[in-house]
Amino acid sequence: MSEPWREFHASAGQNGLPESQRFAFSAQPTIEDIRRMQAEFTDERDWNQFHQPRNLLLAMVGEVGEVSELFQWRGDVAEGLPDWTEAEREHLAQELSDVLIYLVELAEKCRVDLPQAVLRKMALNRQKYPASRVQGSAKKYTEYED
Amino acid sequence: MSEPWREFHASAGQNGLPESQRFAFSAQPTIEDIRRMQAEFTDERDWNQFHQPRNLLLAMVGEVGEVSELFQWRGDVAEGLPDWTEAEREHLAQELSDVLIYLVELAEKCRVDLPQAVLRKMALNRQKYPASRVQGSAKKYTEYED
Amino acid sequence: MSEPWREFHASAGQNGLPESQRFAFSAQPTIEDIRRMQAEFTDERDWNQFHQPRNLLLAMVGEVGEVSELFQWRGDVAEGLPDWTEAEREHLAQELSDVLIYLVELAEKCRVDLPQAVLRKMALNRQKYPASRVQGSAKKYTEYED
Amino acid sequence: MSEPWREFHASAGQNGLPESQRFAFSAQPTIEDIRRMQAEFTDERDWNQFHQPRNLLLAMVGEVGEVSELFQWRGDVAEGLPDWTEAEREHLAQELSDVLIYLVELAEKCRVDLPQAVLRKMALNRQKYPASRVQGSAKKYTEYED
Repeated sequence: MSEPWREFHASAGQNGLPESQRFAFSAQPTIEDIRRMQAEFTDERDWNQFHQPRNLLLAMVGEVGEVSELFQWRGDVAEGLPDWTEAEREHLAQELSDVLIYLVELAEKCRVDLPQAVLRKMALNRQKYPASRVQGSAKKYTEYED
Repeated sequence: MSEPWREFHASAGQNGLPESQRFAFSAQPTIEDIRRMQAEFTDERDWNQFHQPRNLLLAMVGEVGEVSELFQWRGDVAEGLPDWTEAEREHLAQELSDVLIYLVELAEKCRVDLPQAVLRKMALNRQKYPASRVQGSAKKYTEYED
Repeated sequence: MSEPWREFHASAGQNGLPESQRFAFSAQPTIEDIRRMQAEFTDERDWNQFHQPRNLLLAMVGEVGEVSELFQWRGDVAEGLPDWTEAEREHLAQELSDVLIYLVELAEKCRVDLPQAVLRKMALNRQKYPASRVQGSAKKYTEYED
Repeated sequence: MSEPWREFHASAGQNGLPESQRFAFSAQPTIEDIRRMQAEFTDERDWNQFHQPRNLLLAMVGEVGEVSELFQWRGDVAEGLPDWTEAEREHLAQELSDVLIYLVELAEKCRVDLPQAVLRKMALNRQKYPASRVQGSAKKYTEYED
């Protein structure tokens, strides 16, 4: 099948909401769009000399740290961030974007086809955590092995 | 313009290789495809109760740690990972995928439209680091401000 | 004053418990003891060639990731970890130790006198967050500036 | 033996320098001194309500991110940071201190006696990586198992 991720589509909507009312991302830009835009950004600034894999990894760690700072003193935070201001949400959106941008560029510099790698990993996850066995439990998958 | 990321396309290819020979990601799955697949994976296992924002953030930190472990004793690593075995590359591909999966689910639970947020952040980055001023320098952008 | 951290001692015990009943660490090993033990461990294995600053930093990130994995699916966790088993506590103790060991070795390789640096940083923190102004608020210190 | 870390002392100095010329930390403050000072700092500000274990963990992740930002665009960095300015060194000293302060407070809130936990972990590391078998190799310890 040329588009294996389509097969999951039929099972969407389990959590009660009609699909039209569920939150979804925009279809674009794709991960490849982001890779290409960031490659152009880096090329234009002659920054490829700095964007070696370990440098990009440390930059990503820095951005994960910035996301953490937004959550650190809040205790549990509910889905949808009900108590956050619009400015806080936009700040979070920017920090999550920074993580993604560096993750994409790290994958590119490592010659990892990230979208396809995700499909392989998701297939592995479905094998490791069969829905019929792990229902409602967060135990690590090794605890389910016979 | 309905597809603003297209505008960057004309400037691709600066680094000498014809575009047909440059590494690129597969066009699919998109970030929204990944969001939907992961939402279904979580729904099927009744795991939404565990996938609150801070839990997903800590899970992402754990996966970033696993990526770091793959790079930790290697010293500088060149683009393309020339000395890595095929098994090491696939291990890295899986860990990078885990980071992306949790990042996407974190953004979803926070109601952040991640693809669109990246476009906004990239536009900001182009303003903060004008190509004409930062050519070949990694100084932090604040050092360029007048 | 040759031992400036003593000066804080007089104000201990505010939270109601007599000091004799409060949890405290063992007096030893000191940070310097840990540095020396880890230096010997590294020397004996001829591992200094691998323990360059950025390698140690990535190793520390990996260990922080392992700590995060212990907390990731739990939601809020109360002081004292009341629901954790003895095995989970010991696992946590080991992962926190790994973070400390790499932090100490990173500081050593960077020639940072970590114990003295902490004293300087704590003095700065006391200036930035005057107790009289920040009582019971987690706002970032910049929000307190006039 | 009441002070087991003393036993490693006899083997110090392998790497050629007389011990008197080797870099060492100040003997004080100890980890317990730092715990007590930070507890007083937190008490005085009525901040214990915010300093729950997962909050402190996320704060530590944020500080690790700040350390990473100092190293991210530099490529390999040699022991002693030969090219760093005094201001950069002090900045690093402060960020490493922040990691230690949050690590210490996290251990305290989890009731982990961090100094003693380090001794146990170091003993385990000596068992897992016998000096006679791992000389000069960074292979993961599992690769040494029979």
